[in-house]
Amino acid sequence: MRRTALLLALAVALSGPLHAQHATKIGNAAMTTAGKLREQALQADTGWKVVESLTTEVGPRLAGSEADARAVTWAIAKFKALGYDKVWTQPVSFPRWERRSESVHVLGGSSQSLHATALGGSPGGTVEGEIVRFADLASLEAAPAGSLAGKIAYVDHTMSRARDGSGYGAASRIRTRGPSAAIRAGATGYIMRSAGTDLHRNPHTGITRFDEGLAPIPAASLSLPDAQQLTRLLDIGPVRLRIALDCGWNGEYTSQNVIGEITGRSKPNEVVVIGGHLDSWDQGTGAIDDAAGVGITMAAGHLIGSLPKAQRPARTIRVIAFANEEQGLHGGVAYAKSQAGNIRNHQIGAESDFGAGRIYAFQSKVPDYAKQALGQIAMALEPLGIEWRTDGEGCGPDVGPIASLGMACAGLAQDGTDYFDYHHTPDDTLDKIDPQALAQNVAAYAVFAYLSADAQGDFGSAPKPAEAGK
Amino acid sequence: MRRTALLLALAVALSGPLHAQHATKIGNAAMTTAGKLREQALQADTGWKVVESLTTEVGPRLAGSEADARAVTWAIAKFKALGYDKVWTQPVSFPRWERRSESVHVLGGSSQSLHATALGGSPGGTVEGEIVRFADLASLEAAPAGSLAGKIAYVDHTMSRARDGSGYGAASRIRTRGPSAAIRAGATGYIMRSAGTDLHRNPHTGITRFDEGLAPIPAASLSLPDAQQLTRLLDIGPVRLRIALDCGWNGEYTSQNVIGEITGRSKPNEVVVIGGHLDSWDQGTGAIDDAAGVGITMAAGHLIGSLPKAQRPARTIRVIAFANEEQGLHGGVAYAKSQAGNIRNHQIGAESDFGAGRIYAFQSKVPDYAKQALGQIAMALEPLGIEWRTDGEGCGPDVGPIASLGMACAGLAQDGTDYFDYHHTPDDTLDKIDPQALAQNVAAYAVFAYLSADAQGDFGSAPKPAEAGK
Repeated sequence: MRRTALLLALAVALSGPLHAQHATKIGNAAMTTAGKLREQALQADTGWKVVESLTTEVGPRLAGSEADARAVTWAIAKFKALGYDKVWTQPVSFPRWERRSESVHVLGGSSQSLHATALGGSPGGTVEGEIVRFADLASLEAAPAGSLAGKIAYVDHTMSRARDGSGYGAASRIRTRGPSAAIRAGATGYIMRSAGTDLHRNPHTGITRFDEGLAPIPAASLSLPDAQQLTRLLDIGPVRLRIALDCGWNGEYTSQNVIGEITGRSKPNEVVVIGGHLDSWDQGTGAIDDAAGVGITMAAGHLIGSLPKAQRPARTIRVIAFANEEQGLHGGVAYAKSQAGNIRNHQIGAESDFGAGRIYAFQSKVPDYAKQALGQIAMALEPLGIEWRTDGEGCGPDVGPIASLGMACAGLAQDGTDYFDYHHTPDDTLDKIDPQALAQNVAAYAVFAYLSADAQGDFGSAPKPAEAGK
Repeated sequence: MRRTALLLALAVALSGPLHAQHATKIGNAAMTTAGKLREQALQADTGWKVVESLTTEVGPRLAGSEADARAVTWAIAKFKALGYDKVWTQPVSFPRWERRSESVHVLGGSSQSLHATALGGSPGGTVEGEIVRFADLASLEAAPAGSLAGKIAYVDHTMSRARDGSGYGAASRIRTRGPSAAIRAGATGYIMRSAGTDLHRNPHTGITRFDEGLAPIPAASLSLPDAQQLTRLLDIGPVRLRIALDCGWNGEYTSQNVIGEITGRSKPNEVVVIGGHLDSWDQGTGAIDDAAGVGITMAAGHLIGSLPKAQRPARTIRVIAFANEEQGLHGGVAYAKSQAGNIRNHQIGAESDFGAGRIYAFQSKVPDYAKQALGQIAMALEPLGIEWRTDGEGCGPDVGPIASLGMACAGLAQDGTDYFDYHHTPDDTLDKIDPQALAQNVAAYAVFAYLSADAQGDFGSAPKPAEAGK
């Protein structure tokens, strides 16, 4: 959005009935400081160094693995090294899922291995059966009970590429709901074309779940080239597949949300929450998902913490490296539970969990009285090439649970055009991140966190009954 | 090269002393037919269908594996289905190398798996040791005897990208010579940054060899992102690695060169040889290496075979799907041995074994009396965007052994800019091939084979002593 358009949007936003007596606003000094933070962030490489450190020294960090504990230790040490005023942890318990080995093989005259990976939450087991292909989830869900007896269901949907990742909705539902639909039709195994947009031999994993009362079956995803291969083989004739997975649930584990704070100047008990998640899937080093989010927000807090004390924002900046996002937002849920009685002290929250592409939009659904302040933040973000979407909502996964309790929430939308080329694959590694784009993200989070933490007035956080199923 | 430039090059080529009495030349009717073949090839998808069939129905086909035998059966059937006049096989025996499992793991505080693959020819075994990094092969070769006792040598050279693949020379020497150099310095294991130009988690395999008298050690290559990771870890401090390979030589195997012929109109015993190799490495489906070469040349021969009998070229078109190129040109060597007394009947040869990128240059080192005919072929290739390199040489790997015995040889240089992104990796799959570029290749091979087979006169094939080490 160009500046004129932005001002127009601001004017429109303010044209509704305004309770002028308590309109939230941001002071000129804060706007000046935010501008300096923005320029400092673009010159710095703190975010990059944090991402490099986590992905290199810890590497892959599946929730519940030994690397999970190393990641927690790393995060505590990194917050301290970055000069955070207060560093603390919050226990997060969850069932532990382990991946040990996996193979998928075409049997018969075209015998060959396919590159596949177990879906998170899949049980182990070896199944052989004829493949029955479905073009989409709806077709599988329409398969009559018993119609897949002894067979392996294959959902062959091709995810579409989009800047906002909108193709992931349909694709990830095939991962989360497909296995249960296959079981209902009698299938003994489940396989899907990965929810991804690349053409490399890297299958995309991700959590699945099995509906209550169903006996879980081995469930895996094929890399995109392997799915094309299976589809070509099916065009020639029937295909029998062997899926052999050694994986499954194994006890409970307690990890930690790791939290670093830059204490506020005058309202230290009120917080702006930013963060990312510390865990990753096991095959890549979790660079874009989500070392980037951890690095962006740790670096943003660090920049704010490096300001002269008198320029500190009124409220505290709380940066959270959430535990086990991948397997069910466990860290986000634990945080929300612990803060259920403290919603009003949460000024606003935002999470970075969509890679490291440049941020192109800023959006938040706030009461009318807070729109002026939101517009001021948008104006400070605009030099970063970020447009204000006055009609947009947005909230990252781990701040979702507390947002559903009433915390105000903002979205800094990243360009995710390439995100699903690497997401949940071995290919999610440091080399996929552009340092300049990462610095732009740090700048945006620093500006957003600083200005919202220093605003006079609030963004509408207020307790409300928890929504189901968040 | 533009047409004017081409004509100029032709004039220059012909300006030397010419034995006019036996200058090789090509008739006008043949030039006209070649033009028609060229246009037909660009419209057809025979090459694509052959590549699709081999990569899908047979899949990966490591020399000596059960898929090797399936590939031979496939090739015989495909030649017949494409209407070749004569289909025959020639036994090719070689030692069988097997890959069973492999893992490479960083030990200690940054414990993590790295994506690596055994080099072909590596023995199995598990070794642990501290990594010693070398920037290039020369540095490793300069390491004093005993200096790497108990350690693992790591050569960290980054291959450069080039249209002609020229970066592969230095990179592949690190694969073939590095392990022996490591053994001489006392190392117990060997690892290298893959000879590749991509940034995906796909290690590039390829044959290595161990010098006489040395006890082989486990030798593997890291994917490019994993090599970057290892180098970053080494920047922090010492790194211990465990390399565990289960692979090795296991007996002898006899495969087959599969040969299809389009019989010549008037000189059926004289042949133009074109071909590719039938085997592949085991992890991809060998689409660019070298189903493409097989498909391009099978389709070119098929087009020529589809001409009315009266328009058949004077000589026979012999298309060879060579056995086991990857592990030492075994098929090419066997063919050369069998034809050592028959060199003069080999008009000229060319092999397609550099992927499926568009051909950009035509080159051959022929006697002066054959340059006019070469120029005529170049003129027929020019509408395909192919320039004549009058100073160039070129000969594919499997026709190398017979070329060293005296067969004339031509090179149709493919654009290999992306070739080493996929070469010898799991990612060498059908989706990496552009059907239009493949058709352009078929057109070029059809034109080249047809015109050289119909030329009046020869291109200089004559027996000479075999060169050592080819």
